[in-house]
Amino acid sequence: MVEPLMNPEKFFEEATPVEAFVPHGRVVRSPRKTGPLSGLSIAVKDLFDWAGVPTGAGNPAWLDSHPVPSADAAVLSALLDSGAALVGKSVTDELAYSILGENFHYGTPRNTAAPGRVPGGSSSGSAAAVAASLVDAALGTDTGGSVRVPAAYCGLFGLRTTHGLVARSGLVPLAPSFDTVGWMARTIAPVSSLAAVLLPAADLAWSKVWTLPETEALVDTETRQGVGTVVRSLGLPSAGLVGLTEAYGGLEGLRKLYATLQGWEAWQTHGGWITERKPIFGPAIAQRFLTASLVTDEEADAAREQMLRFRVDLRSVLGKTGVLVLPASAGPAPLIGETEEKVAEIRSRTMRLTCAAGLAALPQITVPLRGSDGLPRGVGLLGPAASDQALITLALRTGVA
Amino acid sequence: MVEPLMNPEKFFEEATPVEAFVPHGRVVRSPRKTGPLSGLSIAVKDLFDWAGVPTGAGNPAWLDSHPVPSADAAVLSALLDSGAALVGKSVTDELAYSILGENFHYGTPRNTAAPGRVPGGSSSGSAAAVAASLVDAALGTDTGGSVRVPAAYCGLFGLRTTHGLVARSGLVPLAPSFDTVGWMARTIAPVSSLAAVLLPAADLAWSKVWTLPETEALVDTETRQGVGTVVRSLGLPSAGLVGLTEAYGGLEGLRKLYATLQGWEAWQTHGGWITERKPIFGPAIAQRFLTASLVTDEEADAAREQMLRFRVDLRSVLGKTGVLVLPASAGPAPLIGETEEKVAEIRSRTMRLTCAAGLAALPQITVPLRGSDGLPRGVGLLGPAASDQALITLALRTGVA
Repeated sequence: MVEPLMNPEKFFEEATPVEAFVPHGRVVRSPRKTGPLSGLSIAVKDLFDWAGVPTGAGNPAWLDSHPVPSADAAVLSALLDSGAALVGKSVTDELAYSILGENFHYGTPRNTAAPGRVPGGSSSGSAAAVAASLVDAALGTDTGGSVRVPAAYCGLFGLRTTHGLVARSGLVPLAPSFDTVGWMARTIAPVSSLAAVLLPAADLAWSKVWTLPETEALVDTETRQGVGTVVRSLGLPSAGLVGLTEAYGGLEGLRKLYATLQGWEAWQTHGGWITERKPIFGPAIAQRFLTASLVTDEEADAAREQMLRFRVDLRSVLGKTGVLVLPASAGPAPLIGETEEKVAEIRSRTMRLTCAAGLAALPQITVPLRGSDGLPRGVGLLGPAASDQALITLALRTGVA
Repeated sequence: MVEPLMNPEKFFEEATPVEAFVPHGRVVRSPRKTGPLSGLSIAVKDLFDWAGVPTGAGNPAWLDSHPVPSADAAVLSALLDSGAALVGKSVTDELAYSILGENFHYGTPRNTAAPGRVPGGSSSGSAAAVAASLVDAALGTDTGGSVRVPAAYCGLFGLRTTHGLVARSGLVPLAPSFDTVGWMARTIAPVSSLAAVLLPAADLAWSKVWTLPETEALVDTETRQGVGTVVRSLGLPSAGLVGLTEAYGGLEGLRKLYATLQGWEAWQTHGGWITERKPIFGPAIAQRFLTASLVTDEEADAAREQMLRFRVDLRSVLGKTGVLVLPASAGPAPLIGETEEKVAEIRSRTMRLTCAAGLAALPQITVPLRGSDGLPRGVGLLGPAASDQALITLALRTGVA
């Protein structure tokens, strides 16, 4: 991946069919030093500040109403100092408030791993660029599943880091209690390399694998089987976890908790700008912000209390060396042009699967699997706080990489 | 159409494939008296109160949170007293805030006149039921085009009445300055019969036909030709109207004016309920209400002032005996499953065509035409205040009926 840096124009010209990069983000940056990431090319979700390049956050009104950043986001700086090259700003769902990967303004990045299907979002362009082998890895963000889901849909490894471990300065926020930096790659090696630079070491001996039997009804057969395959491949004592979600109304109750808190925070974060600037949002994003604007402080307070209890519950189960294996998505990526009703239903099932990591502020890695129909699916490994690097090592045991 | 009244169950069973009626509206009402409408069966948009039957307004939360009305809407009462039978409550877009005809909760009524295409909205089920010959006519409402557009898409005559002429008691409002009652039929006769019952007489001798050359760029070839055909068929002196919209930023400026005022009124009307009840809206409707919630009083005041000026301008041009012939829609009905971007673009062009009647509070009738591709299109006749019945007579001259 040195060549594109030699001729960015040619690179982006050839990358055009993948539609992974925003028009204002056809830029590259050479590494500042040699280091552990030398030779790696990394696409950057257009939610991170890149000095001298506009940050679009997936919405043209955002692009227009914010100054071009003069400094790099902390993560970009760290990557450049470690030898990585940055290649392009990738399409994100509007303000990262979706897991579908269709952007009303910038289009739908091509999922080359599952043609005719969405790439997943909100780190849609990042996933698409990696899946199409345009770059070695890509930076994304994961608030409610925005790295884990596109990774599952595009057949990639994707890490959502422990909340708070990776600096978020220079990153457009959505819901700060849940916003995390993450990254994706086709094999585990680049995921591991970035982790070594951006995350603290995590030496731990995994002792126990948990599964969540209640997720089985939410996913397709291939995903369910994939979870079983991954559990067996880990070679650790395993058990089904029953009753974890009971006090919260099951996974649907947790999903609602999450949606309430995320919505409240999203409106706290962006409501002022939306009210002032009146941006045009695609219908699904507008729907989400309307709902967000209606969450009361009381509802958010009640949800937060529940969230903190759930956080303690899940962390107690995992201890320091337990891992929860669960579906990363409900099935393969939805078809492009699926009905709104079906998309809403898939989204709802998916969020029931992804919300635990967000609510508990824990790391989760997507391990990609391919179903017998040839379509990518993903299994998640959810670990204790700061176990990120150990999760990556554990993912190696699945043999997929 | 006496038979279905004999066996409503069988009627609604057989009507099922058209998906025009809401589940809670599979009801019929016999006429109270014989009269000028005897023998006519009329479907009722589920926005009108029908004593003893829930009013759904296209949204399940609305259905759940409002008592079953104990009285009929004024219009229903008048129809029953004039001999009409009421047959079924028809699907409406949510709170009538769309012209597309896809309802997130109740589905998309089948456009049998253009299979694979939307029926148009918000009087979607009414148009679908009439197009499929399930009923002789159907009641709808037209705020921004909700009768005129589905009529054009489904190959029907559709009348938007002069604002304020037909009683709106027992009707769920959207934007009271623009809300009107309207109706549709396959031929002009039932449109005329209902008009005779619901509207004052209008004896006038049409003197002049106006066209709006600036609409030509907004429509497809067949619609453009249709306007010409209709103008010629009227056999009156005609002229192109230039400069009408100049002071308002053209038709796009008028569309924006309309959207601002409609949005402001829609939020005044429903914002309280939405905030309190937090209904689930389909994405496109939520998008509209989010935008509506952001309109400031100052913006609405400024727009209202402009609207009143435009109203005077257009009414001055028409005088008492002039008619404006313009496209009723931008082209045939959009395909089901069209992209959001394309739907938004079509909507925007359509609203530039429909907003004049709303802003000027004037009546407009859609005359259906079929293009060489076999798809329905519509041409609108827009007349002076209270000229509704004369517009119907004028529509007869086009020879379509």
